[in-house]
This record gives sequence, structure tokens and C-alpha cells, in this order.
Amino acid sequence: MSFRDHIVSCNNYDPARVVPLTAGGARIGLLRRDNAAALRRFSDVFAVGSDEVELVASGDVAAVSRAIDIVVDALVADGRVAKWRNETFDVAPRWGMPPVFCLDRGAVPFFGTRAYGVHLNGYMREGDGDTLRLWVGRRSPDKQIEPNKLDNLVAGGIGNGHGADETLVKEAEEEASIPPGLIRHAVPAGAVSYRMETRLGIRDDVLFVYDLETPSDFAPENRDGEIVHFELMPASEVLKRVRATSDFKFNVNLVILDFAVRHGLLRPDDPEYLEVATGLHRPLD
Amino acid sequence: MSFRDHIVSCNNYDPARVVPLTAGGARIGLLRRDNAAALRRFSDVFAVGSDEVELVASGDVAAVSRAIDIVVDALVADGRVAKWRNETFDVAPRWGMPPVFCLDRGAVPFFGTRAYGVHLNGYMREGDGDTLRLWVGRRSPDKQIEPNKLDNLVAGGIGNGHGADETLVKEAEEEASIPPGLIRHAVPAGAVSYRMETRLGIRDDVLFVYDLETPSDFAPENRDGEIVHFELMPASEVLKRVRATSDFKFNVNLVILDFAVRHGLLRPDDPEYLEVATGLHRPLD
Repeated sequence: MSFRDHIVSCNNYDPARVVPLTAGGARIGLLRRDNAAALRRFSDVFAVGSDEVELVASGDVAAVSRAIDIVVDALVADGRVAKWRNETFDVAPRWGMPPVFCLDRGAVPFFGTRAYGVHLNGYMREGDGDTLRLWVGRRSPDKQIEPNKLDNLVAGGIGNGHGADETLVKEAEEEASIPPGLIRHAVPAGAVSYRMETRLGIRDDVLFVYDLETPSDFAPENRDGEIVHFELMPASEVLKRVRATSDFKFNVNLVILDFAVRHGLLRPDDPEYLEVATGLHRPLD
Repeated sequence: MSFRDHIVSCNNYDPARVVPLTAGGARIGLLRRDNAAALRRFSDVFAVGSDEVELVASGDVAAVSRAIDIVVDALVADGRVAKWRNETFDVAPRWGMPPVFCLDRGAVPFFGTRAYGVHLNGYMREGDGDTLRLWVGRRSPDKQIEPNKLDNLVAGGIGNGHGADETLVKEAEEEASIPPGLIRHAVPAGAVSYRMETRLGIRDDVLFVYDLETPSDFAPENRDGEIVHFELMPASEVLKRVRATSDFKFNVNLVILDFAVRHGLLRPDDPEYLEVATGLHRPLD
């Protein structure tokens, strides 16, 4: 196990296995070829070609979203998609552009549409200020994805119509009882991006990363049942665990590596330094 | 002018215009096709094929370096290379690997070997601690590259046999009179990488980035004549100037953008945020 292994496994995407999903000439998703083939019978919504799938449903965002939701229900019946039913994501060619449609979160990897999330590194300084401790959460055994794994202080997907800062404030309250007066000191510190094939399709993920130095009288408390326990761990120990194990949720390894690089916990003389420093930000084509 | 323009111009590399330079089966450089052709007459040192140039000079590092230096002298006579004569860089397939040879800095773009540098963002906090000012240097009119442009507090290439931290300490002393007791508080914060075609060839550059919060009684003073003047500028003003002008040295724009992303001076609602956050770390193939 090495830092590199986490980066490689989050970037196991192989373009040869995928065709683009387009709308109005712009790419909005990445369909694995078996998933593309499963869309042939919905010819009023998708035109499936050999090298491209085109969204052909017409109407406004609500109408297109409804048409696609009917397809998603059929895919659920086929066992190809596990619908979440409580969370939809905006689908657009680029961050900040108006959405083409909204999609149930459970169907996002099937279509390979880009998904955005927020991750918060909570930390405290010790002693001389150069030694850091990181807040680490343990995911609930009931989570659909990566139960029981270790996690950041706060993390969540950006639902349709919401922004990054806004999602952070909401998730910080629900997941760790961080009050608005504290979370507004969180510093946006970049984005981690990766592209990964899973059993369901393609995860084309962008994580907006924030850092928050927590005061000595703060202790996180989970409210939504998604995290069962929080612990403050020496950052050096967290990093050792990332290097040697898969104890952390797959993409949290990348967020922690990004934190480690930005805060000098990893140094240029580490043999993996450049691979980590340049491997966490997959270009967004 | 936009942030994006700086990233694009530092990554104008076109693989179709280049062939790999290899040694022992590993790529060690990127030769523009006209530069590759100019090596045909040195058949005891290079085997020039249509899709690859292979280093064939044999011997230890010193012997290969001497053989290549003779080629470089001939290229200087042809006007293809401007030799520096006071600085050589290690050439290796990867950072941290033993060098294959050492090369005069002036010949690095001709061969397109990867070059490593250190850049230091010097900053001070103001008022509530959330407002930052950045130290900005003005390059001497006598500099060979980008005279009179604005620069980081400290920057320099990593010469053969030296490490990143070591180079930072040396350059900090020469360029800004930063004493060893202060520079050891500099935090390594990642790497900026880009690949750029210039008049001379290919710049395949990796910049190790450091941040240093300077104390209120510190003022930088240049010793080596490379910087004529230092100024403390509000970070927000520096960022505006990066967005609107080419006042900063070409690659310093990227280092400042990286600083801006890491310190929350740029935020996720900026339309260029993701392009900047993912565009500063070209993967090292």
C-alpha cells in the first residue's frame, strides 16, 4: 500500500470503455458501453449511437428531468440503478452553468455525470503551532457507500440548486453540529478531482475542499446518524494510516493527502511527493 | 486577460511538435523536431530516429555530461543555445532518481529535460488575521529571462546535486536576506507544474512552492542583484493584477494563483475557480 495506490484506484477510468453523453453538442456525462446499450429502448429520451449517446428529450429542465426520471425508474427495476429518492444533483456541462436536468443521486454513476461535493478538514494546532491534529469521523454501519470507514469532519454532495459554501454550512450543522458562526471561518482551499469506474458506472467527481481550525472548546457531535463517532488524531498518524491502510473512505484518502501537501506534512524529499502533489487534481475535460 | 490565459500560455505544449529523448528506455526529455534534427551530426552521442532520439553516449555521469557539453558548445556556436556557464541541472527520468547527466541551464529547453525550481510566497497577516499582504519583488532589468517583471519573494532553479529545501535556504539568503532561523519556518505547500514551448524548445517545469509568514520586523533585502525592489502588496490587489495584466513573470502568475486557491482568496463561486484549482498541476508523465 502506498499514497499512489489511493490515487490510482480513484483514477481507474478507461476512456475505451465509455462513450460520451451529450446534450446540445456539449458533453454532460460518460456512459459505460453496457449502460449506453441499456438506453436503446428509451429512444424518445436518448439517441444511442456507437460512439455517442445524445439526450433528445425536449422541454424545460423540469420536463427533461421528468423524462429521465421515468428512465431511471425502469433502470431501477432492471437492477442497474439504486435510486436514493431523497437527493437530486444538477447536471450541466460545467460548474456554474445552468442545469440541463436534475438527476437522482443514485443514478449519477450510471450516466457518469459530474458530481460535486464539499469536504471539510477540521484541525487543531498543538504546542508550538507546527503540530496538527485532525478530526476524523467513523461512518455509520448503515451508510450505503463505504460503511464503517473513516471520514473527514464533514462531507456531503452538492444537491440541485445549491452552492458549495451553502452546502458546507448545512452539512456542518447536520453532520458535526458546527454552528454557522464557526463554519464561516472555514477556508476554501482548492478542489480534488478524480474519475473512477465502479460497479455502477463512472464517478466523475469534484470535491471542494475546506479547512477549519477548531477552537479548544469545540467537539463535533453528529445529528443525522451518518457518523457514529469523532476522534482527534495526530495528523502524522492519520497520514501513516492513509499510506498503509484502506481504513479511510476511498476519496477521503485524497482529501487528506491534499491537506498533507498544503500544510507541509508531506515534504519534497518524500519519494511520492510529486506524484501526490500533481495527482489529486485531474484536469476537467 | 483572465486567470485562464496564464494557465493556457504556460501549457501551450503540443505533443505533435516533439519527439522523446530517451536514455536506457526511459524518457528524459522532449525535443522539438527541429532541435532533434540538429542533433543528427552528433551520432556518437545521440541516435536520431524519426520518432525518438536516444542518448547513446556511454560512461559514468561525468563522461556523459562531458560528451553532451561538447554538443552544447556546438549548438551555442549555431545560435541554438545560450549557455549560462555558471549553473547546471541534473537530468533524470524522475525527481529523486540518480541523474543520467548534468546539463548547462541554458541548454535545458533545447533538450526539454524537466527542470525543478523553488518559489517562496512571503506573506503577512493584517488586522483580524484574514487579510493577507504578499511580498512582491521587481526583477532586475539585467535578467536574461523576463527582466523588470514582478516576482515572488524568492525563486530559483534547483542546481545539480541539490535538494529543494537546501535550494530554498540558499536562495532565500541571496535573494532576500532571509536568515536560516526564519526560512526554516517556510511550509512546503505543493508543486506547480506546466509544459510550455518557447523559442528555444520545451520548458517542462516543476516548481516546489513554499509559504512563509514573515514577522513584522522583517524586510527583505536583495544581495545578488537579481531583484531591484521589494514591496508588500494586499493579496487581493496582487490577484487583481494577475487577472488583468502580465506584470508578473509568466510562471509566477501560476504560483500566486496556487497561493490564492490554498488560502481562500479565490472562492468556489468564482467562475474560473475549478479551472484554476485543477489547472496548476499538470500530471507528470
